[in-house]
Amino acid sequence: MSETYIAGAGMVRFGKYPVDVTFEKLAVCAAREAMSDAGVSTKDIESVYVGHVFGGPVAGQRVAAQMGLGGLPVSNHENYCASGATAIREAWIAIKAGLYDIVLVIGAEKMTDRVSGGVMPDPTDLDAINGLVMAANHGMSARRYMSDHGATREQIAAVAVKNHAHSVHNPFAQYQRPISLQEVVDARTIADPLGLLDCSPISDGAAAVVLCSAAGLAKLGRSSAPRIAGCALVSGKIVTADTNLNDEDVSRRAGEQAWDITGYGPEDIDLVEMHDCFTIAEIVRLEGLGVVPVGEGGRWTENGNTSIGGKLPVNASGGLLSRGHPVGATGVAQICELTWQLTDRAGQRQVDNANIGLAYCKGGTVSGTDGGSVTVLLVTR
Amino acid sequence: MSETYIAGAGMVRFGKYPVDVTFEKLAVCAAREAMSDAGVSTKDIESVYVGHVFGGPVAGQRVAAQMGLGGLPVSNHENYCASGATAIREAWIAIKAGLYDIVLVIGAEKMTDRVSGGVMPDPTDLDAINGLVMAANHGMSARRYMSDHGATREQIAAVAVKNHAHSVHNPFAQYQRPISLQEVVDARTIADPLGLLDCSPISDGAAAVVLCSAAGLAKLGRSSAPRIAGCALVSGKIVTADTNLNDEDVSRRAGEQAWDITGYGPEDIDLVEMHDCFTIAEIVRLEGLGVVPVGEGGRWTENGNTSIGGKLPVNASGGLLSRGHPVGATGVAQICELTWQLTDRAGQRQVDNANIGLAYCKGGTVSGTDGGSVTVLLVTR
Repeated sequence: MSETYIAGAGMVRFGKYPVDVTFEKLAVCAAREAMSDAGVSTKDIESVYVGHVFGGPVAGQRVAAQMGLGGLPVSNHENYCASGATAIREAWIAIKAGLYDIVLVIGAEKMTDRVSGGVMPDPTDLDAINGLVMAANHGMSARRYMSDHGATREQIAAVAVKNHAHSVHNPFAQYQRPISLQEVVDARTIADPLGLLDCSPISDGAAAVVLCSAAGLAKLGRSSAPRIAGCALVSGKIVTADTNLNDEDVSRRAGEQAWDITGYGPEDIDLVEMHDCFTIAEIVRLEGLGVVPVGEGGRWTENGNTSIGGKLPVNASGGLLSRGHPVGATGVAQICELTWQLTDRAGQRQVDNANIGLAYCKGGTVSGTDGGSVTVLLVTR
Repeated sequence: MSETYIAGAGMVRFGKYPVDVTFEKLAVCAAREAMSDAGVSTKDIESVYVGHVFGGPVAGQRVAAQMGLGGLPVSNHENYCASGATAIREAWIAIKAGLYDIVLVIGAEKMTDRVSGGVMPDPTDLDAINGLVMAANHGMSARRYMSDHGATREQIAAVAVKNHAHSVHNPFAQYQRPISLQEVVDARTIADPLGLLDCSPISDGAAAVVLCSAAGLAKLGRSSAPRIAGCALVSGKIVTADTNLNDEDVSRRAGEQAWDITGYGPEDIDLVEMHDCFTIAEIVRLEGLGVVPVGEGGRWTENGNTSIGGKLPVNASGGLLSRGHPVGATGVAQICELTWQLTDRAGQRQVDNANIGLAYCKGGTVSGTDGGSVTVLLVTR
């Protein structure tokens, strides 16, 4: 069983691109950045794993063919907003199985030119059809959290302020300007109490990593690189009417699987890339994972514990809220950020003593009626 | 590295189902059949792999949740018409890596109630927009094959006659009546020289297998089961104008990867489940793989070499032409057929001395402008 190392990472800046900047172009650009960072050429790559939701059939094969990787095994992985992380996990499994020494993993999405724009609920989801869409779920989650834990609207809004402050220093972030607490609270309401700035944007983008076995790393003449210590994947369970919307069973189980695989625990984590599709989601998921005490997430955010320089920096990249959220790319972008942090290349957003990083993605509805997916990936120096 | 065994197989009959028989219902039915065949209950299953093209985001999670498998790791795999085979391959890799002992793999598709019905070309594929769709590609392939090898229209049509004759005895086949050579030749032209009966139909359906490690098989109290000897996956390369459309480079490379993984060669294969999306495709792909001599495929079909009882029975199930082709389900259905053949449970379509079976899927365009995918899976007694 070989360990899996991250030999290189690359991204395109997330944001809104013109129609002629296609899914394939974004993916190819990110892949070339990662390959350049790893110092590999097309002939070194043995297989290509692509995570996306809306790229269409064999989208990964089109990307591979366009960059001179035609002929290789190429596979497409879809787990909604956890698609990129799932692609990384499948590549990690293949390296463990001894199939490959050097593989390319790409996450990509072109969303701004889609008719619907964002992530639509499943047409058979009666709750969603009747209005219980993503934002509504998270609005209810926020109200329940405030009620259960005495948290304030401002503590929840502080997640957006923090993540936007972080991404001022991230050249790949969709937004690179600070926002004030007042701006977040005053933004137009999307789903009470959440406003526009509590929501992650619709984004285009791509991210890629080159993963290696120990033999692959040696082949590249490298003696060290960040290591993927383990990848957890769980799905949701159908929730019943009496379930607390903030009972983060799915996060708890994903965390437990990750601790079980890696031997690490919540106390070992130095920094987190968290799936903050909405401000409140960052808080309840950190608590579900067990890296922040239950009910403390609001206060932790407010007092800077989750800021760069704090006890547990969360979303040094800016997260989904401010780096942006091209759904299939997000999980790979999280691993790019951890790679840069764990090799001291994060510039002004560098986290001190970043030795063990955790990346969390969630795909599918909050309520779990479609099952949904959560991935937890651990990366170590 | 554990070997991978097929503990159980199950399908629903392929065909046209009403709108209320959803993707999820088809998938659940097939999965329950496979689990029943394997003698496993929901608590035995450790992970779920789902292959589909049109099921929508996190379709596999909806299926898992509906059958009491919510909570497990679930992943969705898309490689167009090779999606089901790709899901099996990823499960095979995970078992090799030691992650799981008992996993469920499902391939499913609901196609007849889609607006477009069938498989549409990529909107950026200029050739396809201008008419070079699947059927046109295969029509040109047939003409070129006839010209290069002196094959007759009747020899190509004989593929449909044979596959329909086989599936008379397959209770899971969409079509279960014999057709005559004259019917095939007289059917209305779709893309000269190919007519309606040279084309696989649009179908709904699902198929599933339960895969086990050696330890998993022991846990089920089983001492033997068909073994997945190896799974090959390659993508296409961009072809140039001077490439012979029948140069089956992609099939040759997939075959070579399969021989390399398994240690078997073309001469060892006892029966083939071949991706006969069109009659001519069965012929050129068998030749590309090297299991039939180049230029002989037409004659081999005509003289019964590829019929049950012949030298190398191909598509004892009826193949895509007659079992039907719900795209994501096809690769898994092929493995169901090989499982039944290798355990002497194929009834009146049983192939004698079926010890080593090969299943071949192709996803994406023939011309390979999108890269496409070919899988070759070998199953042994």
